[in-house]
Amino acid sequence: MFEYTRTVFFYETDQMGVVHHSNYVRWLEEARNGYFASIGLAYDETERLGVMSPITDINLKYKYPARFGDTFTVKMKITKYTGVRFCVVYSVINQEGVILCEAESAHAFVNKDMKPVSLARAIPRRHEIFKKRFTEENSL
Amino acid sequence: MFEYTRTVFFYETDQMGVVHHSNYVRWLEEARNGYFASIGLAYDETERLGVMSPITDINLKYKYPARFGDTFTVKMKITKYTGVRFCVVYSVINQEGVILCEAESAHAFVNKDMKPVSLARAIPRRHEIFKKRFTEENSL
Amino acid sequence: MFEYTRTVFFYETDQMGVVHHSNYVRWLEEARNGYFASIGLAYDETERLGVMSPITDINLKYKYPARFGDTFTVKMKITKYTGVRFCVVYSVINQEGVILCEAESAHAFVNKDMKPVSLARAIPRRHEIFKKRFTEENSL
Amino acid sequence: MFEYTRTVFFYETDQMGVVHHSNYVRWLEEARNGYFASIGLAYDETERLGVMSPITDINLKYKYPARFGDTFTVKMKITKYTGVRFCVVYSVINQEGVILCEAESAHAFVNKDMKPVSLARAIPRRHEIFKKRFTEENSL
Repeated sequence: MFEYTRTVFFYETDQMGVVHHSNYVRWLEEARNGYFASIGLAYDETERLGVMSPITDINLKYKYPARFGDTFTVKMKITKYTGVRFCVVYSVINQEGVILCEAESAHAFVNKDMKPVSLARAIPRRHEIFKKRFTEENSL
Repeated sequence: MFEYTRTVFFYETDQMGVVHHSNYVRWLEEARNGYFASIGLAYDETERLGVMSPITDINLKYKYPARFGDTFTVKMKITKYTGVRFCVVYSVINQEGVILCEAESAHAFVNKDMKPVSLARAIPRRHEIFKKRFTEENSL
Repeated sequence: MFEYTRTVFFYETDQMGVVHHSNYVRWLEEARNGYFASIGLAYDETERLGVMSPITDINLKYKYPARFGDTFTVKMKITKYTGVRFCVVYSVINQEGVILCEAESAHAFVNKDMKPVSLARAIPRRHEIFKKRFTEENSL
Repeated sequence: MFEYTRTVFFYETDQMGVVHHSNYVRWLEEARNGYFASIGLAYDETERLGVMSPITDINLKYKYPARFGDTFTVKMKITKYTGVRFCVVYSVINQEGVILCEAESAHAFVNKDMKPVSLARAIPRRHEIFKKRFTEENSL
């Protein structure tokens, strides 16, 4: 399971004194991009090769507020990969191990014109890496 | 059904050339706060009276990208109100009526210490307005 | 002098209980884009014609905090236009006329490759509108 | 000179394909808070002790665009500290040493009611640390 950690930024808080809920959506994206970079599929390179992966669904359950001064960790795992879609589950915890948020997201692949494409056909080499990693991680 | 409309801001786009998905979470909040202000339950006043309503769950389905130059409308409706929780459904469309996003959110009431409270007990007058509106809107 | 008005959004506040200072930079952009749309130079169209106008300098003086529940107005005026650059001054006030922020920004014109261009040469028709408006507004 | 480094996040880009200029204001804040934490003056603790330090002025000169995939470093230095105010200068560079942005900011100290206070009187211990560090760094 991939882990992404950083401190909370002051500007991520709102007047409730806690992190505004919209920022978790951004934290999950930071974690995903960290994960893809770590397995050799850096998103900026995939995009230069003409394939983008917009989000199609996201569900978040907010469990406990994050505060400025906290350090959060996003734990994530790819749960589905078909060559044309993938799904991710996430758990966000703070420095004391308290669960802040649980989430899942689904993603498609599109070309520069926002038309759906198969990663398998568009960039076979990246598809192979993705499939191999997905298989390994889900066979453990 | 309450409707909230505004134009897309340039800074809401990302390098895909469309609105970044995290902004929809913010648009839904804008719509909710517009709705509550419109029925006499402005959120800043509720908060001054000691009650806040953090989000506990949010689900979004992204259907079609919004772009800078677009005008979006959030249509929303309260689907549940129990005095201690409420739920909202949303549909976000662009100026051509194309559905951009469908979403739902759930909210609790808490006091300044982030402890759950009943709006019914904490601010009975606001509870009555909320309940009356909820009943009216869902009996149509 | 062009005026742009809207309410403060909840997510624009931080844990100080006031609007985070970074949002003023975004409000000024909202005002600029509203101004350009109002004089027939909508930014999304200029961009489709191949010219973008990145900011090169911005100075802000924060005078008084904006809060959720406030309505702000950005008053702005183009103070310089040379065909290759333009400058803007802004005053942001709240619903009681209190000055929240005073600012100025400078902008260049670039093409899709981020190379400096002259609006006068790149899109003469837009240059003429811009020059005419600039001259009129500054001769009053 | 304190240095703060991180990668650019995807959501910080706009449809020009580069980081939106408003994010630099946030990066400078990240650097400041990193600096204060590093010298034993973590901002969340200062705030718990009743003192906040809102920004009063900020000037930014944008030199070169940052892109997703870049790693930026904010180099910063306190240039003035009087017990009631402080000033900071910054230089933001990318992984190749190219200057992205040069900036300076000014800050006041206020109490929970947003009234100006002297850090020297409000939290003498923190004032001593701040003054000592400021003197050391500016005598080099």
